Amino acid sequence: MSTVNWDARLSEIALNVKPSPIRALLKYTKTPGVISFAGGNPDPAVFPVAEFAEASQILSREGKDVLQYGATNGYDPLKEYISKWMAPRMGRETKPDEMLITTGSQEGMDLLCSVLLNDGDTIIVEGPTYPGALHAMRNRGARFLSVPCDKDGLCVDLLPGVIEQGRKDGHKIKFIYSIVNFQNPSGATLSKERRAKLLEIAEKYDLIIFEDDPYGHLRYNGEHVPTIFSMDKGGRVVYACSFSKILAPGTRVAWIVGAPELIQKMVMIKQGTNLCTSVVAQALVYEYCRLGHLDGFLPKIIAHYGKKRDAMDAAFKKYLPANTRYHTPEGGFFFWLQVPGVDSTKLFMKAIDHGVAFVTGPAFYAEAGEGLDYMRTCFTFAQPEEIEEGAKRLAAAIKEL
Amino acid sequence: MSTVNWDARLSEIALNVKPSPIRALLKYTKTPGVISFAGGNPDPAVFPVAEFAEASQILSREGKDVLQYGATNGYDPLKEYISKWMAPRMGRETKPDEMLITTGSQEGMDLLCSVLLNDGDTIIVEGPTYPGALHAMRNRGARFLSVPCDKDGLCVDLLPGVIEQGRKDGHKIKFIYSIVNFQNPSGATLSKERRAKLLEIAEKYDLIIFEDDPYGHLRYNGEHVPTIFSMDKGGRVVYACSFSKILAPGTRVAWIVGAPELIQKMVMIKQGTNLCTSVVAQALVYEYCRLGHLDGFLPKIIAHYGKKRDAMDAAFKKYLPANTRYHTPEGGFFFWLQVPGVDSTKLFMKAIDHGVAFVTGPAFYAEAGEGLDYMRTCFTFAQPEEIEEGAKRLAAAIKEL
Repeated sequence: MSTVNWDARLSEIALNVKPSPIRALLKYTKTPGVISFAGGNPDPAVFPVAEFAEASQILSREGKDVLQYGATNGYDPLKEYISKWMAPRMGRETKPDEMLITTGSQEGMDLLCSVLLNDGDTIIVEGPTYPGALHAMRNRGARFLSVPCDKDGLCVDLLPGVIEQGRKDGHKIKFIYSIVNFQNPSGATLSKERRAKLLEIAEKYDLIIFEDDPYGHLRYNGEHVPTIFSMDKGGRVVYACSFSKILAPGTRVAWIVGAPELIQKMVMIKQGTNLCTSVVAQALVYEYCRLGHLDGFLPKIIAHYGKKRDAMDAAFKKYLPANTRYHTPEGGFFFWLQVPGVDSTKLFMKAIDHGVAFVTGPAFYAEAGEGLDYMRTCFTFAQPEEIEEGAKRLAAAIKEL
Repeated sequence: MSTVNWDARLSEIALNVKPSPIRALLKYTKTPGVISFAGGNPDPAVFPVAEFAEASQILSREGKDVLQYGATNGYDPLKEYISKWMAPRMGRETKPDEMLITTGSQEGMDLLCSVLLNDGDTIIVEGPTYPGALHAMRNRGARFLSVPCDKDGLCVDLLPGVIEQGRKDGHKIKFIYSIVNFQNPSGATLSKERRAKLLEIAEKYDLIIFEDDPYGHLRYNGEHVPTIFSMDKGGRVVYACSFSKILAPGTRVAWIVGAPELIQKMVMIKQGTNLCTSVVAQALVYEYCRLGHLDGFLPKIIAHYGKKRDAMDAAFKKYLPANTRYHTPEGGFFFWLQVPGVDSTKLFMKAIDHGVAFVTGPAFYAEAGEGLDYMRTCFTFAQPEEIEEGAKRLAAAIKEL
């Protein structure tokens, strides 16, 4: 309908942007009867609907305040709540000028990239990593260097070599991006020893660490590992967390913590991108927390998702080929499966025919040609009875390939 | 506290970004006793607090849906409502793939710039214009060419000359930005004849028009002027509107309408910046509209703000120096005053001493040195009795300078 030649006037960002590979797959998961292990969605069956609705009392009580423009760095009562609530994990109460409330963690990533990256600058990422992070980073002109992960997370011993070779090759490395707990997609948790080592390396090479932690509160067994932020004395670690997985993603309320000099710059950019995160959404989240529902809800979803994790683990052990490899995650949302020699991209359409969906391995790598025989399966979204059936269907699809 | 040398690693965007000039002034408006004509805020005294709180029933009714991740292009029921509600102004019901829900109009601006601008590309703006727009555009690397405004809005007759000279000077002009109704800050409305002419010029020079319309529904006298979007047959006009001024800015819910090719690219960028606008906020706004409160509230604020406009007009006529120049706006939020020979930046601190705040003229220009003896005063935020008192104080400050 448009007579305008758009291609001729789009920006380089627009010409290069691609739909998220996960989004491209997700449309198939809408096929009736398909059991989805694909999207990384929480289970709506356990959303705290009544508790969240109760929080709407703040709209009457504080309406004149929460309906007005809000401060760009966030709704003060919520920031204060988070600072106190997170103190045991952060090692201390963080100060107001160290924290910015964002429209999802995704926005924290975008803003961090906007204040650190010039076009062509490099980020060290985990291989595999969260595709949404790669998407945000690419939109801000990033190049990537990948470092492999094993069952203890990022292989930090390989880092110095990657950094040194990268610098020799002309990479201007700005920061190291790590999803430290129950990584997306690998499920691995970076061990305490590796966290200390990672910080040491970042100090030695004068690099920033972006510690992304959306899943840290969802541990089903094992012991909590201290955040890198809490180990850092030099203001070198930027830490992000979110209400998406511990309350509900539809709020789009998350936060990012870092050195005041950096946060202040992100605030100034955010003044130009959306002025502030929805004050209404922030106030609802705050009130929900204030009423004690966050602390009440967490044990409930930990128990619920822990059972689902166990169910998927048991079903995979029962049905998948004997050569399938994975490490059972201690928390989070995901299994990361390798079926050696099975091309997960070819498997995908076959699996859809059998009525089950997952995300193909290559979606999680910055470079093409990696992760070909890997797939990510989410255990939180599907219902318990679907998990066993889905594993059975996946096994049948693999057999047929 | 940070041992990191941040300046050495910040991006060019971060190094160049400045706090919004309005934000820098706003801190003075917090001084006790100061009457603020500065910020462009709606009046919290008439926020529809009870009606908006009533809308929270959707959190119980649709909780499982609205707490989940939402579609990047927006909450379908809200998009449908807007499409029908806006049809008389848009000339037709716009289609789902022509509309994107944004986190405030500010985000629409940022996304539009991200898909159209390469670093150093040029936007034609009105002189004066909204500083938040300049901020968003600068963050995406824009340069500017300004075209003056008079009481009928953008002086479109000057446009061809500016475009031709600009192109000769190497400017790659991407779009023309116009706030068409009750412009911020000038209060002027672009006449119907000029809208037609503007579209003709955009066609001739193959340029896009960004029609920004946050105030269009707030007309206190005179006749509605058709949108440029409704005159356009070529998909050349991008139109933005918001709930900030007609409901409440704390929702951070707005929308942008344009050619599907363009909207689709903005959706892809938004997947990387925040995935979607708060579904919770969108659902609350939708329910508020569905219950009929938007249509019920509009006449109320139009009457309320119309009286405030009249009060400020009368107070300025009564107290300000005889050589003060302004055109009484037919709607919106602002008066744009010129007191010839009075430097508004010098006047500002004097005015704060007298207990009244405004925004200085130069904040509204892309180029330094313009608008020196202008100031913007907002009539919606201050209470009626404050408006007369504020005008009196402003007159005293001018006299003292």
